[in-house]
Amino acid sequence: MEIPSVYLEQAVDQLASLPGVGRRTALRLALDLLKRNDVEIDDFVSALSALKDKVLRCQNCGNISDTPICGICSNPKRDPSIICVVEDIRDVMAIESTSTFNGMYHVLGGLISPMDGIGPQALNIASLPVRIEKDQPKEIILALSATMEGDTTNFYIFKKIKTYDLLVTRISRGIAVGSELQYADELTLGRSLQQRQIFDLQQ
Amino acid sequence: MEIPSVYLEQAVDQLASLPGVGRRTALRLALDLLKRNDVEIDDFVSALSALKDKVLRCQNCGNISDTPICGICSNPKRDPSIICVVEDIRDVMAIESTSTFNGMYHVLGGLISPMDGIGPQALNIASLPVRIEKDQPKEIILALSATMEGDTTNFYIFKKIKTYDLLVTRISRGIAVGSELQYADELTLGRSLQQRQIFDLQQ
Repeated sequence: MEIPSVYLEQAVDQLASLPGVGRRTALRLALDLLKRNDVEIDDFVSALSALKDKVLRCQNCGNISDTPICGICSNPKRDPSIICVVEDIRDVMAIESTSTFNGMYHVLGGLISPMDGIGPQALNIASLPVRIEKDQPKEIILALSATMEGDTTNFYIFKKIKTYDLLVTRISRGIAVGSELQYADELTLGRSLQQRQIFDLQQ
Repeated sequence: MEIPSVYLEQAVDQLASLPGVGRRTALRLALDLLKRNDVEIDDFVSALSALKDKVLRCQNCGNISDTPICGICSNPKRDPSIICVVEDIRDVMAIESTSTFNGMYHVLGGLISPMDGIGPQALNIASLPVRIEKDQPKEIILALSATMEGDTTNFYIFKKIKTYDLLVTRISRGIAVGSELQYADELTLGRSLQQRQIFDLQQ
């Protein structure tokens, strides 16, 4: 499949570098962009350029923000005694949309993944002990994905912070609310049996 | 799901304007771009800008090209007496990869689709009669998709060119090579029965 334009080929190469975008999809996206007028292309390109120039990371929690300190960290109504450790901004958004958490976040920017060459140094982990010493939180919630990378990262962080006088918790894993037992995978079902909880009418 | 950065939000809006990209995917793409360094972002953005500035359409056939006349139209080994009408560059690439066609193309840039507000004026159709009068081809092959839009466009083009002294053909429709009869949809199977061909040992 040979593209008859060097410039179109370069655009396809770049678009195909995005996660989950193959060359066929990239060509479709590039052809869609080709159909747009100059103003639309300029808007598109400058919105992406702004990612580099304008989007900051909160100096406190590492979350994405337009200001040096993000809206959550600068909100006096949030409880600074609980810090929830998450992988990235999407997890912050997901937890915020549950309206069940009023603490602070610590955004790692990824998970430890030796297979992908991502070590602890590439992530926003070293600043967590510093923050704990400064803010003296009572609890750290580890809210990472239930994957091997999530478990590895949980373990690494736990080792780094276990000497501090605080509670380290992990979000519960088990059968999803509304789902049927028979369709749960063995691992999830096994874990949810092992980590069974006292029956409580209040919950 | 509220994004805590106006600039990230704008980038997500733009990425979500691409075909087949929803807001959740757009956020994933934007976060991937956010992780890249300045040089990478610049390369990405300038490759897309080049689509506007550098990519031309062949003045003869309408195909995408870096030169005013594309590589196929300027190739003296191609047969100018057969013109194959296609929707866009992907169809040119698909037909070229079959190595069974040595004629020229006429690229419409889309199909007539009243539902999407795309009329014949928005497409590279008016230049086809002009080209026929100039180049006097012997055959026009209509190689459009087997969809309602493709049929509509076939019909419109046929009406426009039927007065010229040339053969107008359409690519055959039927059971795909290698596929089993029982899995063909009713419409395809019905048409392939109606449009049955004389059995020929040569083919």
